[in-house]
Amino acid sequence: MSQPMSELVGPIHVIGTGLLGTSVGLAARRAGIEVWLSDSNREHVRTASGLGAGTPAPAEGAAQLTVVAVPPDHIPGAVVSALERGGVVTDVGSVKSLPLERIADQTDEAGLARYVGSHPMAGSERSGPLAATEALFDGRPWAITPHTHSAPEAIGLVEALAHLCGAEPVRLSPVEHDRAVARTSHLPHLLAVLTAAQLAEAQPEHLSLSGQGVRDVTRIAGGDPDMWTQILRSNHAAVGEILRDVQEDLARLVHVLASDDPGSLEEILTRGVTGTRAIPGKHGGPPLATASVFVSVPDNPGELARLFADVGEIGVNIEDLYIDHDPGRPVGLVELVVQDTAAESLRGSLETREWHTHR
Amino acid sequence: MSQPMSELVGPIHVIGTGLLGTSVGLAARRAGIEVWLSDSNREHVRTASGLGAGTPAPAEGAAQLTVVAVPPDHIPGAVVSALERGGVVTDVGSVKSLPLERIADQTDEAGLARYVGSHPMAGSERSGPLAATEALFDGRPWAITPHTHSAPEAIGLVEALAHLCGAEPVRLSPVEHDRAVARTSHLPHLLAVLTAAQLAEAQPEHLSLSGQGVRDVTRIAGGDPDMWTQILRSNHAAVGEILRDVQEDLARLVHVLASDDPGSLEEILTRGVTGTRAIPGKHGGPPLATASVFVSVPDNPGELARLFADVGEIGVNIEDLYIDHDPGRPVGLVELVVQDTAAESLRGSLETREWHTHR
Repeated sequence: MSQPMSELVGPIHVIGTGLLGTSVGLAARRAGIEVWLSDSNREHVRTASGLGAGTPAPAEGAAQLTVVAVPPDHIPGAVVSALERGGVVTDVGSVKSLPLERIADQTDEAGLARYVGSHPMAGSERSGPLAATEALFDGRPWAITPHTHSAPEAIGLVEALAHLCGAEPVRLSPVEHDRAVARTSHLPHLLAVLTAAQLAEAQPEHLSLSGQGVRDVTRIAGGDPDMWTQILRSNHAAVGEILRDVQEDLARLVHVLASDDPGSLEEILTRGVTGTRAIPGKHGGPPLATASVFVSVPDNPGELARLFADVGEIGVNIEDLYIDHDPGRPVGLVELVVQDTAAESLRGSLETREWHTHR
Repeated sequence: MSQPMSELVGPIHVIGTGLLGTSVGLAARRAGIEVWLSDSNREHVRTASGLGAGTPAPAEGAAQLTVVAVPPDHIPGAVVSALERGGVVTDVGSVKSLPLERIADQTDEAGLARYVGSHPMAGSERSGPLAATEALFDGRPWAITPHTHSAPEAIGLVEALAHLCGAEPVRLSPVEHDRAVARTSHLPHLLAVLTAAQLAEAQPEHLSLSGQGVRDVTRIAGGDPDMWTQILRSNHAAVGEILRDVQEDLARLVHVLASDDPGSLEEILTRGVTGTRAIPGKHGGPPLATASVFVSVPDNPGELARLFADVGEIGVNIEDLYIDHDPGRPVGLVELVVQDTAAESLRGSLETREWHTHR
């Protein structure tokens, strides 16, 4: 299924020097490839250029590959202009089908052959060139979404870009991609928003009972409403479909909760447990058998730093880490997630260093 | 509104030596108070006793204060028995109104005066005496939920228990408490479950696009379905009410998404942002102005430990920390959240130590 990789020699033209565009520029420059930079905001071009992401684009001439990294609503127009200028064109937008339709409406078949959409799974929560890093895509999935008319060489070139940036290409059709992100990104965002919206109306003293759970569930609901409006409208078909499924699940939940049917309620909750286990483990492998060590940390300056220094010296590999910081709690609880076979030894070493720990 | 604190001298009778009960025992023993332990599982009593949480309860005789820490469905029965044995009785269950009704049905007014429900906001995700720690409640909110007939001395004694355990009592009526946790705990749990349930049905290759957002939203959906069934059924009135509000919000979202109405969609998303900001900041104070420093960390054993050792030596106070571990990513991204004025200096110090950082 994979084409022989096309040789990416440059120049690469990055249109839109925000977080993603500037990071692509930095990664390409790291590989010694010439990068041209454009942005409607000239200051962003200067900043990105100053960071070493490339040089301001010449007024004309086709790059080998153009990467469109502008806000969602502006993607189709920018891709069409780039195709007119020449060369292979991709974009890094988070929705693929509807933008493709709009591009196809304004482009002939020969032009369209040079377009292949893509979507690196990185960086959506931050913005601006100053947040950019050549390491942004390292090891991340990068969806490559060819359409029926994409030329094999064009597909190969966009895959070469993903490799150049250190990412791992995952090939999906535009429709499949949009269904996948509706489920793994857009639905979680919207249910986080609905949960958070209920907090907006709560009495402050009720909110004093908030723990780590509600913080985790609602964190992504803090994302930029304008950008998310563009993303969600652009993927309204796939998102609408999954939201209607959730409406049915929710109606059933309301019914089961009101009726005396503990078995059905437990079934719904068990399906949730199954879902959490379906998310691939670290590095896409099967989930590692882990165990947690909890450490009580007084909330004084330097205490967490002292814990980190001790954990660093003990040298156990930390798989994951959570800091539980409930309001009103002068002592924080730090959860260190390690391979299950290492938990007892880590706990012992920390106790030796006079930390209060438990499992 | 607060009673003069009653003197808690013991003995305290802990019924149910799981995580919460054993932790109460450890905290009371730390203060030198005699603790009696009971559990239908005798091995749990032996374990808790071995940890220093108290001694097996005598066959008869009333403690000054009995703390019922059994699974939700068994709370009313255990409280009624404890009231018959004598002394003041509280429970640490996560729902208050319906259990109170059941207790009131089986107890005369004089007995009921000695009962005051409570709910420490701690530890729901773990279980068993081995997870216990005397520090479990340090600085946590502990809801105290007196009813109309609770005697002032009984209320004072339960507040004294919360203080003894290092927690901060928050007084609410049973109904108010149940509405508060419906919003801050039970609703987030159920929407996490509905999000996770959609993943259970996804194609594995679609799930390869999962990022940190969906992991955060669904994490609590991994909680024990049996225990959550008991909690949710016991609070079905308040949970049902808020779920019906969410049904309306969801219906409106589906409608707005299908119609060409970007303004209304952005309004819904903005309400979510407002909600995330309503959660009290660390220690209940106003949210601190923070900034994040992102550090790329190769996923080799010891690299994270080396980062922690460096952060420890640099000595900046870390407010919060996230590890981003997308599948397929050999380089992890660690987000260090610090006071905004400290971010640049932390970043500089880390760069000096050859870490790749960005904001």
